[in-house]
Amino acid sequence: MYFPSWMRQLYRGLSAQPAWASPRRSLVLSPHRRLPEFSSFIARTNTCGELRSSHLGQEVTLCGWIQYRRQNIFLVLRDFHGLVQIVIPQDESAASVKKILCEAPVESVVQVSGTVVARPPGQENPKMPTGEIEIKVKTAELLNSCKKLPFEIKDFVKKTEALRLQYRYLDLRSFQMQRNLRLRSQMVMRMREYLCNLHGFIDIETPTLFKKTPGGAKEFLVPSREPGKFYSLPQSPQQFKQLLMIGGFDRYFQVARCYRDEGSRPDRQPEFTQIDIEMSFVDQTGIQQLIEGLLQYSWPSDRGAVALPFPSMTFAEALATYGTDKPDTRFGMKIIDISNVFRNTEIGFLQDALSKPQGTVKAICVPGGAKYLKRKDIESIRKFAVDHFNQCSLLGKLRLECADLLEKKGVVLRDPALFSFLWVVDFPLFLPKEDNPRELESAHHPFTAPHPSDIHLLYTEPEKVRSQHYDLVLNGSEIGGGSIRIHNAELQHYVLATLLKEDVKLLSHLLQALDYGAPPHGGIALGLDRLMCLVTGSPSIRDVIAFPKSFRGHDLMSSAPDCVPPEDLKPYHIQVSWPADSESEKNSLNLHQES
Amino acid sequence: MYFPSWMRQLYRGLSAQPAWASPRRSLVLSPHRRLPEFSSFIARTNTCGELRSSHLGQEVTLCGWIQYRRQNIFLVLRDFHGLVQIVIPQDESAASVKKILCEAPVESVVQVSGTVVARPPGQENPKMPTGEIEIKVKTAELLNSCKKLPFEIKDFVKKTEALRLQYRYLDLRSFQMQRNLRLRSQMVMRMREYLCNLHGFIDIETPTLFKKTPGGAKEFLVPSREPGKFYSLPQSPQQFKQLLMIGGFDRYFQVARCYRDEGSRPDRQPEFTQIDIEMSFVDQTGIQQLIEGLLQYSWPSDRGAVALPFPSMTFAEALATYGTDKPDTRFGMKIIDISNVFRNTEIGFLQDALSKPQGTVKAICVPGGAKYLKRKDIESIRKFAVDHFNQCSLLGKLRLECADLLEKKGVVLRDPALFSFLWVVDFPLFLPKEDNPRELESAHHPFTAPHPSDIHLLYTEPEKVRSQHYDLVLNGSEIGGGSIRIHNAELQHYVLATLLKEDVKLLSHLLQALDYGAPPHGGIALGLDRLMCLVTGSPSIRDVIAFPKSFRGHDLMSSAPDCVPPEDLKPYHIQVSWPADSESEKNSLNLHQES
Repeated sequence: MYFPSWMRQLYRGLSAQPAWASPRRSLVLSPHRRLPEFSSFIARTNTCGELRSSHLGQEVTLCGWIQYRRQNIFLVLRDFHGLVQIVIPQDESAASVKKILCEAPVESVVQVSGTVVARPPGQENPKMPTGEIEIKVKTAELLNSCKKLPFEIKDFVKKTEALRLQYRYLDLRSFQMQRNLRLRSQMVMRMREYLCNLHGFIDIETPTLFKKTPGGAKEFLVPSREPGKFYSLPQSPQQFKQLLMIGGFDRYFQVARCYRDEGSRPDRQPEFTQIDIEMSFVDQTGIQQLIEGLLQYSWPSDRGAVALPFPSMTFAEALATYGTDKPDTRFGMKIIDISNVFRNTEIGFLQDALSKPQGTVKAICVPGGAKYLKRKDIESIRKFAVDHFNQCSLLGKLRLECADLLEKKGVVLRDPALFSFLWVVDFPLFLPKEDNPRELESAHHPFTAPHPSDIHLLYTEPEKVRSQHYDLVLNGSEIGGGSIRIHNAELQHYVLATLLKEDVKLLSHLLQALDYGAPPHGGIALGLDRLMCLVTGSPSIRDVIAFPKSFRGHDLMSSAPDCVPPEDLKPYHIQVSWPADSESEKNSLNLHQES
Repeated sequence: MYFPSWMRQLYRGLSAQPAWASPRRSLVLSPHRRLPEFSSFIARTNTCGELRSSHLGQEVTLCGWIQYRRQNIFLVLRDFHGLVQIVIPQDESAASVKKILCEAPVESVVQVSGTVVARPPGQENPKMPTGEIEIKVKTAELLNSCKKLPFEIKDFVKKTEALRLQYRYLDLRSFQMQRNLRLRSQMVMRMREYLCNLHGFIDIETPTLFKKTPGGAKEFLVPSREPGKFYSLPQSPQQFKQLLMIGGFDRYFQVARCYRDEGSRPDRQPEFTQIDIEMSFVDQTGIQQLIEGLLQYSWPSDRGAVALPFPSMTFAEALATYGTDKPDTRFGMKIIDISNVFRNTEIGFLQDALSKPQGTVKAICVPGGAKYLKRKDIESIRKFAVDHFNQCSLLGKLRLECADLLEKKGVVLRDPALFSFLWVVDFPLFLPKEDNPRELESAHHPFTAPHPSDIHLLYTEPEKVRSQHYDLVLNGSEIGGGSIRIHNAELQHYVLATLLKEDVKLLSHLLQALDYGAPPHGGIALGLDRLMCLVTGSPSIRDVIAFPKSFRGHDLMSSAPDCVPPEDLKPYHIQVSWPADSESEKNSLNLHQES
């Protein structure tokens, strides 16, 4: 496992820091960002990975994990920064040092002191960033011995995810996890600089012990010490950020922990993080420009520059052209309407389709399809179409399916190095309820403002009203969404009570607040986990979270959630309804009534 | 309500930012921090509070709240930045503008455009930062009208806290809350710069849905969808940060949300925030230097410079000299041992005291006491002593009581502008259990390492072992605490199983992790709410939190916690044990057994 020289990359472009004297070294004011001091306050003088020819002759103290040992002559020491070769002294006078370094098992933690020397000619390792030097050790200390590992660290990514999660603390030592979490920290820090230092946003923490939102079916409950009363863990700080606007904090942001109880979902987490933003006196364009600047500013330099502005597409156009509201615009293969070609066709099923109201015939042109797709591929596409028949998103899925097939043949359609951002706008404000299509529900949430051109339709044909909601899509994944909000109490009441038939009492505090001088406002939330997943090219969001839950919501390391003794439930006035017991209890109650 | 010119103060000393082009203006590389752009991306060109004579002649667009109106001629507009005077146009051609500005109720939100002009000679207001100018308005728009407020914003701080919390969004518009929360955001940002950009710390988010810790009696529970299984909301990321060290992230920090269910406590919150830090290869001195540098770097410049290093005192010395483990060292009045003076006394109760093993006579010298304290003060001190008799912290409390008395007489003992930091070290590792003094419990938590000089005592006289725990005290309040941790699995097992008699199975993941190459490590957590309370000189931590709970744990605005319909409890397999119903249910079960 060679660490590439990625630390400098990670910190490249960091801003200048003001003069400040550390207890050990003084920083001078510099117009360029510099690497942080990774060795301040502690025993080591350097990290393993930073040593180069420029350090020749320096006395260094290093701390790290034993990566491997070669014939009791060399030892490779590892820290988060990289690997360095240690020469194990062979002379009699250094017998105790030799003993320590030769006997400590792999992954033991040691501290060594010695001199940086050049490797003998011919023994340099050009593949290793520290490959020109090695450490001539004088003293060594075993800080902690390591028992035999269940697996070698370098093989961890090849193991099952369950095993990786069970030994997460070992998995975290892998290059991939180190890089992902360090990049995440850096990128969030850059976002903070942009929002807080450049644009005057205020980082405000909002509560996570809140009250169930109307219709918030996916909210975890937290029993309180008052019988029958529960807090809930909110899915987003939506109400709080709007109340902050009303409270005169006109530029709010928070890296907000959010909660969503969806049971088992493969690539969702019960707790997740969003970059949560709200502004007063802003319109849709303002929010979009802010986010474009934010991503450009915080984007890792080795992932290529972010070109502005991002293209924009209406919801209707996205559906018509890509068959989805989150199109992957890295490649073409758009859906095209070929109804006119077949207007006078004699092919029965096409005639059928075109004779229906708004009936159309649509096609995807697969470039190179004739060359790459074989009979069995065509067959699989046909089967896919049959399986998804009558789903309006069929063509969108078919497009991705064709892309998969072509890529299996070696055609590069979706360049993993390409980041294709897209705004999707003009969503409908309401959708028919799934279980009762004659009633309406919010397409996003009830605080979304209607499109200014469609306000009159609210009172006549609300189902036709477009909203001021916008989604940010990256390479076919939704990475953010937001809207201009309703700031008029009367309009908000009409939407909640008349159109959505919600119990307005539950939101009386918000309705009242809108009446007390609420400024016009809007905002957005970026899904940080998903974004980092795309930036790092990770297969799962669990690769960009330090301690994720399994897809069933378990912490496989500590085995949470766990049983709790009944006396711990008592202060909360709750008891468990055991699925089996509940039957017998019901019986006992029935008997009671009968007796 | 005049806003002082505090924004520049707040942002003074911010670091230089790299060249970056905003959609509206371009920032140039500068060696000095500059004010953020508060008006980027939105309709306004300036904030109300920033306008000065240097803006004369400029065309500006402002958005804000109507603070008050004078005789339909002047209107004072407010935003977070300050106040500015608007001249309401009186000529016929501007009738519509006049109508808007004269009819909008106070606290309505308006947008105005016009020219910055000098006030007529003699009409300048030197008390107002914008007092040399006013705005000659050309256009105005009512963005939102305000209903009659329950109270005037400027009077809010005088109202009951319950009322302030019920209308928190109005309370947030007050100068105090704006300043407190903006300062909090700034100070945390500076801490992040210090940790992340200067010293290479990695901001890592840890889960809040975790597993109950052994003895974690104050942890909120979160029912899962598996019958009888619960997550818990942890009191700190303690286990996770240690696991991160084992995972090779050798410099971790997080602004961590923590939870503690203590029922009703006047100045505690069920959720609170700590600056959570952990380092590998560090000793106590290293952590202390890091924290001293952190506070010096992030300290608001108008609160005076922070002098380093902070003084340090052992736990034993703190108790002996100040009668508490968190001494307020802003003033003297130390406790002194005067046993020798009375060695040959004939006063009975002193003889008595001195004849006991380790019996002592101690005194506090109250400077100016004879001058300031009257008979009834002495009487109240005597009564205080009687009420607290036999509490070992009596003398410490008496010292503060005397300070209170002297300050009531106008003597300044505890300068509110003085910030007196103190490390308290060498705490005992264990304390006798309150309910069973022959058993031991951890003085702090079971992961704290013993003092290196006392390790041998662990096996013979564990109650005498000092720990490597350290507390940071500011003006008599504990604002942080931490320790060097145990990194040896065997020692950790001995402490947990043999000394504390804990069920080690619950911590098997941590014990196992310590065996797989755990580096030596230590850390600290600063209580951010308490720290901000002291920095801002606020009477309550609720003044530095945007949406705090009442002292009974209620959100008075939304009335959380709240009742939940029984069908919402079903997926979590819990039911409420109603205090009254539980009796009748028990009866029904008894009847069942009898039938």
